[in-house]
Amino acid sequence: MRLVVTKDYDTMSELSAAIVLEKMLQNKRVNLSLTAGNTPVGMYKILLEKLAKTSMDMSNIHYYNFDEVPFVGERYGMTMAALNEAFYDPAEISEENIHELNAGNYKTYGEKLLQDGGIDLIVMGVGADGHFCANMPGATSFDREIFSVDIPAGSDLFKMLKETSGKTPAANYVTFGPRTVLSSKHLLVFANGTSKAEIMKEVLEGPITEEIPASILRMHPNVTFILDEEAASLLEK
Amino acid sequence: MRLVVTKDYDTMSELSAAIVLEKMLQNKRVNLSLTAGNTPVGMYKILLEKLAKTSMDMSNIHYYNFDEVPFVGERYGMTMAALNEAFYDPAEISEENIHELNAGNYKTYGEKLLQDGGIDLIVMGVGADGHFCANMPGATSFDREIFSVDIPAGSDLFKMLKETSGKTPAANYVTFGPRTVLSSKHLLVFANGTSKAEIMKEVLEGPITEEIPASILRMHPNVTFILDEEAASLLEK
Amino acid sequence: MRLVVTKDYDTMSELSAAIVLEKMLQNKRVNLSLTAGNTPVGMYKILLEKLAKTSMDMSNIHYYNFDEVPFVGERYGMTMAALNEAFYDPAEISEENIHELNAGNYKTYGEKLLQDGGIDLIVMGVGADGHFCANMPGATSFDREIFSVDIPAGSDLFKMLKETSGKTPAANYVTFGPRTVLSSKHLLVFANGTSKAEIMKEVLEGPITEEIPASILRMHPNVTFILDEEAASLLEK
Amino acid sequence: MRLVVTKDYDTMSELSAAIVLEKMLQNKRVNLSLTAGNTPVGMYKILLEKLAKTSMDMSNIHYYNFDEVPFVGERYGMTMAALNEAFYDPAEISEENIHELNAGNYKTYGEKLLQDGGIDLIVMGVGADGHFCANMPGATSFDREIFSVDIPAGSDLFKMLKETSGKTPAANYVTFGPRTVLSSKHLLVFANGTSKAEIMKEVLEGPITEEIPASILRMHPNVTFILDEEAASLLEK
Repeated sequence: MRLVVTKDYDTMSELSAAIVLEKMLQNKRVNLSLTAGNTPVGMYKILLEKLAKTSMDMSNIHYYNFDEVPFVGERYGMTMAALNEAFYDPAEISEENIHELNAGNYKTYGEKLLQDGGIDLIVMGVGADGHFCANMPGATSFDREIFSVDIPAGSDLFKMLKETSGKTPAANYVTFGPRTVLSSKHLLVFANGTSKAEIMKEVLEGPITEEIPASILRMHPNVTFILDEEAASLLEK
Repeated sequence: MRLVVTKDYDTMSELSAAIVLEKMLQNKRVNLSLTAGNTPVGMYKILLEKLAKTSMDMSNIHYYNFDEVPFVGERYGMTMAALNEAFYDPAEISEENIHELNAGNYKTYGEKLLQDGGIDLIVMGVGADGHFCANMPGATSFDREIFSVDIPAGSDLFKMLKETSGKTPAANYVTFGPRTVLSSKHLLVFANGTSKAEIMKEVLEGPITEEIPASILRMHPNVTFILDEEAASLLEK
Repeated sequence: MRLVVTKDYDTMSELSAAIVLEKMLQNKRVNLSLTAGNTPVGMYKILLEKLAKTSMDMSNIHYYNFDEVPFVGERYGMTMAALNEAFYDPAEISEENIHELNAGNYKTYGEKLLQDGGIDLIVMGVGADGHFCANMPGATSFDREIFSVDIPAGSDLFKMLKETSGKTPAANYVTFGPRTVLSSKHLLVFANGTSKAEIMKEVLEGPITEEIPASILRMHPNVTFILDEEAASLLEK
Repeated sequence: MRLVVTKDYDTMSELSAAIVLEKMLQNKRVNLSLTAGNTPVGMYKILLEKLAKTSMDMSNIHYYNFDEVPFVGERYGMTMAALNEAFYDPAEISEENIHELNAGNYKTYGEKLLQDGGIDLIVMGVGADGHFCANMPGATSFDREIFSVDIPAGSDLFKMLKETSGKTPAANYVTFGPRTVLSSKHLLVFANGTSKAEIMKEVLEGPITEEIPASILRMHPNVTFILDEEAASLLEK
């Protein structure tokens, strides 16, 4: 486990962008699994700025979303819509380089990942409850590969998803499980802000337990945690 | 071979810094061999800025200079003096992480590299005559590993070195040969400016020949060439 | 996780030997951590036969024992004595390529592993109680790196060790913990015989829990399990 | 460059089989490019024996022939016919795991290799004239990727191919060029018998020159040469 603490969010974003760029610049196929959400906003901004000033063949760079919450009647679910907006569209990523995970293909997606050569880098954040991807406490176990979780109509999860998105969630969401995430060759986990300080202490210094799903990420042979000083403020060392 | 063309020198420097940073941020020992000279000035500036805002254990990051021109009566030769000034000193690299190649140890340095796990990344430029490291046309052959070349007192080389440095060159210089360079896991070659346009055309599109030593770099399985638009301006494609 | 089932113990041993040999034959430093005990007897026999007919530089092949039970008044503990007899002595491994873990150096050994480039391959078996290395149920947790466990004089463990070895155990034993094992680039776990069938079912198909320490091995991105048909006889598939 | 000398052909074959097996046993997609011909007969025999006693998913193991001489009116050319007979058929390799290079697809095959993740291991021999794959002295240059060479009807090459095969060669043959071969992650080159002693001396100790195409193989960062004592008998050391 590699722990890196940055002075601020911008530096966290720059280091994260550097890790993604390095993979992109290598002379081989690279399979990336990048997160949507707020944490990577700065990273995508930097990536887009740099790519706009760079000319290279991008056909060897492939993208895989690691989770999805489908909505009724929508072409894209929550994750893909966010990734399209944050990065795929502005970076003009070719459709054939985007490998969508969704509720229709999740059962065969693991085999696809194997045949595609596996993921080279997953970039992700950690939720305030210790979840990663959509591995929620109580809805995952460490040995899970890619799996689906029901979203019962009227459940708290259903209501929350409906409120935050303004759309109607489909019957289930899908996600890389812990074993799929730990199969990635390199893992980048970032966190910023005081709101993440408590959970990062648990994730990095507490017991490795399914109650805090992200605690298992410490077991990966090549995981890099990048935290800004606020997110790292409660760590022992 | 991966060819990346950037709009300008700054972007070339940023992408190069990203590649170096990614190696530094991994959870394992990493052995870096970085170049001195003018081309990397921008890259070092970015690296130093980012590292100044970052707190992490650096004990797993090791440095190996790939050539050296010793001077009479000086502790450090041309390369090490330049690396100290450009990066090692301002980045406060611990002495035990700097593995100096010099005229006294070059015969055993190859074995040391093997035992140290090999070089993970070499970053280097190309001279206007097609040299890399100190593999000069006429003074190298492709099968060379680490080797020494005489600097006859009074020779043109001797005079040139004396003039540019204001110091007296020692009897010989030492350098990684082509086979040692091609043993690196990743190779980053950068070039900028119109003064490099002609040689980069030969290096990238001409025959692979000892007359243009850097032409052999195209044979490496994982080499990334980053050129600004000026240096790339004569390329076919 | 890669599951390989062989017709018999000999094939299990041959495939295991092939994995070790491949690492030895590469053009780079390789760090191996091999197990002592009964399971690898066949593998060592094959390795010794092949190496006896092979001439090559072995200076780049390094060995690290992953646990040790020291005995009072003995130069080597249980693991090193067994490894010396089974492989290091007959293969004439040079002392400088053997990196002994023992009760005196276990606190700094993790840093040594990092600086040495990490372990490339661990070969190990699983105990009937689900232990691996010396990670016993009740005496390990998943987040452990290299650690020490007391052997209270007069305890059941003390008596068992004394009886089986005919020697007096020292005050504590040392072992790679789960995180150190999962840091290896490749992991080979083998098992043979009906006596291992039940535990292998739990290890491979049961929950990932500290009660069955070896269950965590399934989380490694590059783990190969080689079982003979008897050890695999209770698996679902 | 790693040089391994074995007492005899059988040991050469066993070590070569070990290298192939190790790739097959890993938990990821693996792309293999194996040679036809006489040298690998022993290796295939061992591989088939071991695989016959092994049960595992083989869907992640893919095969790529590195050259082909098509014949008029024949479904398979010289290389594929030989590989089918020597290994693909008896090992019951699924058709979808065999990626045939032929005169019809060679122009897009390099891009296919990139997208498929690159070759993990090439196993090949060296011809008495220093050729490898179909890189003949005079018909290749180091910077070649995958290319085609005419077989003029009535030429010496045409006659030789017709005589040895009893079939009519098509208008051109295709082959991985030096740069494609050097892109492989691992390279295994084997040779046995006194008839290979002179050429192996040139390949391993002579100048790196297009006159002896295989001399370039020494430049690969991870190449293993396995020679029996006869093939190694003229080497300096």
